[in-house]
Order: sequence, then structure tokens, then C-alpha cells
Amino acid sequence: MAKAKIAVNGYGTIGKRVADAVRAQDDMEVVGISKRTPNYEAAVAHQLGYDIYTPAENVEAFEKAGMPAAGSVEEMIEKADLVVDCTPGGIGEKNKPLYEKAGVKAIWQGGESHPIAGFSFNAASNYEGALDRDLVRVVSCNTTGLCRAITPIDRELGVKKVRAILARRATDPNDIKKGPINAIVLHPVKLPSHHGPDVKSVIPHINITSAALLVPTTLMHLHTVNMEVNTDCTAEDIKKIFSSQSRIRFIGQGITSTAEIMEVARDIKRPRNDMWENCIWPESITVNEKELYFFQAVHQESIVVPENVDAIRAMMGLESDGTKSIEKTNKALGV
Amino acid sequence: MAKAKIAVNGYGTIGKRVADAVRAQDDMEVVGISKRTPNYEAAVAHQLGYDIYTPAENVEAFEKAGMPAAGSVEEMIEKADLVVDCTPGGIGEKNKPLYEKAGVKAIWQGGESHPIAGFSFNAASNYEGALDRDLVRVVSCNTTGLCRAITPIDRELGVKKVRAILARRATDPNDIKKGPINAIVLHPVKLPSHHGPDVKSVIPHINITSAALLVPTTLMHLHTVNMEVNTDCTAEDIKKIFSSQSRIRFIGQGITSTAEIMEVARDIKRPRNDMWENCIWPESITVNEKELYFFQAVHQESIVVPENVDAIRAMMGLESDGTKSIEKTNKALGV
Repeated sequence: MAKAKIAVNGYGTIGKRVADAVRAQDDMEVVGISKRTPNYEAAVAHQLGYDIYTPAENVEAFEKAGMPAAGSVEEMIEKADLVVDCTPGGIGEKNKPLYEKAGVKAIWQGGESHPIAGFSFNAASNYEGALDRDLVRVVSCNTTGLCRAITPIDRELGVKKVRAILARRATDPNDIKKGPINAIVLHPVKLPSHHGPDVKSVIPHINITSAALLVPTTLMHLHTVNMEVNTDCTAEDIKKIFSSQSRIRFIGQGITSTAEIMEVARDIKRPRNDMWENCIWPESITVNEKELYFFQAVHQESIVVPENVDAIRAMMGLESDGTKSIEKTNKALGV
Repeated sequence: MAKAKIAVNGYGTIGKRVADAVRAQDDMEVVGISKRTPNYEAAVAHQLGYDIYTPAENVEAFEKAGMPAAGSVEEMIEKADLVVDCTPGGIGEKNKPLYEKAGVKAIWQGGESHPIAGFSFNAASNYEGALDRDLVRVVSCNTTGLCRAITPIDRELGVKKVRAILARRATDPNDIKKGPINAIVLHPVKLPSHHGPDVKSVIPHINITSAALLVPTTLMHLHTVNMEVNTDCTAEDIKKIFSSQSRIRFIGQGITSTAEIMEVARDIKRPRNDMWENCIWPESITVNEKELYFFQAVHQESIVVPENVDAIRAMMGLESDGTKSIEKTNKALGV
């Protein structure tokens, strides 16, 4: 079978990781990536052998910078079966007519809102719903982390209510413009934050509230999750459920922070120190009268990357079984 | 009536503020403060006209540094009716025999555990219980903030359950040794954090769980509070209850962070930009089916200061009515 031809439109934090992850699979290939400016990230893309596409008016600038573009973004889209849109939140929506005109399938990221695709995706929660779809939105890192944790508990025990408090990294490690550097910012003041409703875009029957703070760190988000469940259970039961999930990783052995998780990711030689799994501290799991608590850390730069691969596989009809797609993606990436 | 004679043992973050607050009252006076080393804080104490006492072996060092000590710590204690122990957590316990030997009343801070005094104090919650007591513990900044918010809601509506998530400032602004500078630290991993149980040391009947994170900031703690109450109510009801509390301050007008609250404290010329009140965002108050949420910020350096003054007043029998003591303290400080 011919490999599915994938274009990655936007080569920032998510795009560059999605490109590498697609390249690592045996049933799909990258036909091109797009970049607006010939900067240091474009130089690495060039070095990695990706065909770089750019808006027509920027072709000359790439030529001058010694990394000739393969063509315009429109030309890239023409070559693809499916475009993964990894442009900044809000820009993706403006690209929709381009994809429609070219008749290609499209994936957007969580920065766009649910109606752009009419289907919000998490591999553990609703893989099958994405089968053969033309348009899909892969939800944000925080929503992905919540869906991965809620779905297995809901299937085993039934979830009555979720209360999630998110301490969000203020910005990504390479961002030299944003803060705060010494403040805790309510994000937003008015409750709930968008994360609870966004989980419902994937799993509509879940009763969930959420609140979010921005804190001065770049490494990972940290969720304090409270769930009321319908069935009596123990902390051991919860650990067993979580340990059955290949994209949930248990954190312990003296680790008490996001910084130490990132050190593990570096030590195990993960590309770009990516941590694709939800990082849950089993020691934090406590259960009292059908109410459980736990902490989980979410690597904002990489957690959605395997989800994008699975979404491609479902939409292209390459695999009808979500569990098998997750396994295949994980194996190729090295999860 | 003669003023109550107060010694402040330990002149760090809390001690220096308590000394100034006691000095501002008309029914108590500072007979001395203690400091171990003749550093920059001692120099300011000297300049402010406080009698400085120090361990006997350090008297010479103060002499040499040009800020002669008035005597030993034991001599200071002899002069006092009541000692406010503001030494670092854990040291206060070692001082207990000194106070017992001298037959003085004593107040400890929240760094010590409940049994040291057998009574944990918050002015809004249990002022009357401290009347004429010899030993009292004023609870920590976080516990003070929680007690101030929980007590009025409990009195008006009945509190069924509290779930508090604390994003704690990593350290104080003058601390150049501690971090983290780029991490979120679970504090601790195992739930609950000590804050929930500590609230119960003041208000034993409250059902409360808590979790805490350390985040890289120095300014204030930020609490995300969830309460289930026994009585139907609206957000307006909650606002009305909070607004009846003189040590709860509403935050709005575009403020979304701890840094902006500190800017207000500087602009209104608060000493050391102290914010003695709980800072609650009324816009964050949401109520749904007898369950409410709100955000509050807590200035860790100063919130317990008026509580120490009230504890002194109760223990010395200077005022039997908690509401009147709170009013008197507030007026003298400028709350």
C-alpha cells in the first residue's frame, strides 16, 4: 500500500515534532513542511532533509538564506492526502478554504475551536469516531492529558464529576518574549477555564469543572485532578487502571517536580527531551469515599504528537482499531 | 491601664512586621526584639529605636557593629508579659522552656505544630477561645487565609466540604538561596498537604482536603477554593458574605495576578507593600448546585500580622470581643 502523503503546515513547537513523528511511521510520509521565515528552525528542517514550502512571496528569501524552498504552500497542499495544520492558534481557521479548495483532509490543533472540524480527537477516547473523516481537531495538551486520564477511569468505574486545577507553564522554553517572571496569573479570572468544556468536546457526557493559573516556568503543566466516581474503589484499583494505559507513565523514585521529569526525558535520550505520556505520581493517588485525587504533569510541547499520528491513521483508514494504532505509533516513536 | 509588655523573639520576615504592628497599637508596647546577627535587618531595627537583645555570646558582635545590644534574650523575656516567638519553624519549640521558666505568656507561629500551645488561633474563627490563655499558636499564612474565608461561609450557609488547591510562592522576596527557578514542585507528592488538617486545628468540624504546589515566584500564594455548602445560594450571596469581612479585600479592575496586587499595595503606600487581607476576586466566584469556587491570593509575609496582634489582645485580656479587637487592630494598622 502506498504511504499516506502528509503535509505539515507550520513548523513550530508542534509542527516540527509532528513531522518527525510522521516520518518515523511506516504507513505515512512527509511530503513537505511549511515555514514563513528562513530562521534557525527552518535551517534544521533543511538539514533534516524536509522539503520546505513557504508563501510565494518568501521563496526568494529562502533562496538567499541558502535553504531553497521547494515551492509555495499551495503547491505543498496539492501534493498531500492530508494536511496537519500546526500554525499558531487562530491562523488555522484562515487556512481552511485552502484545504477545501485542494480537496485534502485536514487536522487542526487545540488552538482552534471545536466547530472548525466538528470533531475533537483523543486516541484513547474516540479513535473510532475519526475513521475516514475529512476534518479533525486534535485537542490541546491539557485536554489530551485530561482525556487520557478520565477515559479509562470512566470506562471502569463511571465518572460522576471531575474537578481539575491546572498550573500551566507560562510559555515554551524557546520563547524569549513572554512572562510572567514573578507572578501567578489567573487564566482566566472567571471560572471555569476553557479546559473543562474542551474535555466535553471529546467526551460530552463528562461533568467537569476546571480552573487554570499561569506560573513562571517553561517545562510542563501540572494538573491536580479530583474525580468523583460511581463505584467503590481503592488507590490500588486506580493504579491498576492507569497502568493499563500505554500513554500514562508512572513517576516516582524521588521525583517531586516537572524539572526532574524533564531530566529523565533527557537521560533516556528522548528526542528534544519530549515526554509524550501523561506523567502521573502513583504516590499521589488517594481515594476516599468514591472520591479520588492525583497529580499529573503534561509536557505541553509533545503530548499531542502521537495523537496527531493516530488521527492521521484513522482519517486515512490505515487502521480501524484504535488500540492497534496507538501501539503502532508508540512503537515507532519509542514510547 | 498599663500597656501590655511584648517581646518579639526573632526579627525576620514575620517578627519585624509584628514588632511594627504592636508598636502601632495603643494598648501594647514592644519591650525588645531579638536578633542573632548584626546584619542589615538588625541595623534597621536599631534605626527604628527597638531595644535589640541577642544570645549572650553575640553581645560583643553587636557592640562592634555599632548597634549595641540591650542585653541577652533571657533578659528580654524577663521584661515581658508576653513573648511573640517569630523564630524559624522548629526553633520555637526549643524556646518553650525559656518562656515557661520566666512565667511569660507565649505566641508561636504556624511553623510550629498545634500541640506546642494546644490552641491554634484565627481571629475570625476562634478569638474568644484565646481569652486569657497562656499559650497560643497563630496559624500559618495559608491556614489563616483559608480560615478567614471558610468561617463566614460556614456561619451563614454551613460548609459541607472544602477542596483547596494552593499554588505557593517558592520563597520570600529577600531569599537569595532557594528555588525552584524553573519547575513546579509537588509539595508534597502524597496527598493531602498539611494545610487541610491545619485548618481543622482551628475549626475542627470542617471537612477539608488540600493539595499544594511550589511555583517559581516570591510574591503571594494563590488558592483555588472549592466549597460545597448546605444551603442554596448565589454568587451574589457569597460576595455579600465576603464583603462583610474587614480582612477580605475584593480584587478587580483588571487585576489578574499576584504581581498587580503587590503593585496596588505599593501604590497605597502600605508599609513594606504588605497586604494583610485575603485578596478575593469577586469575578471568580461561581456557584452551581450548592458548590462554589473562587480564587484568593495570600500575602505570605504579612497576612498573619494582624492575627498576632489580636492573639496578644485576647491572651492579655485587653478586649473580650473578637470583632472589636479586629476593628481596633485594623484601624491602628490602616487596613
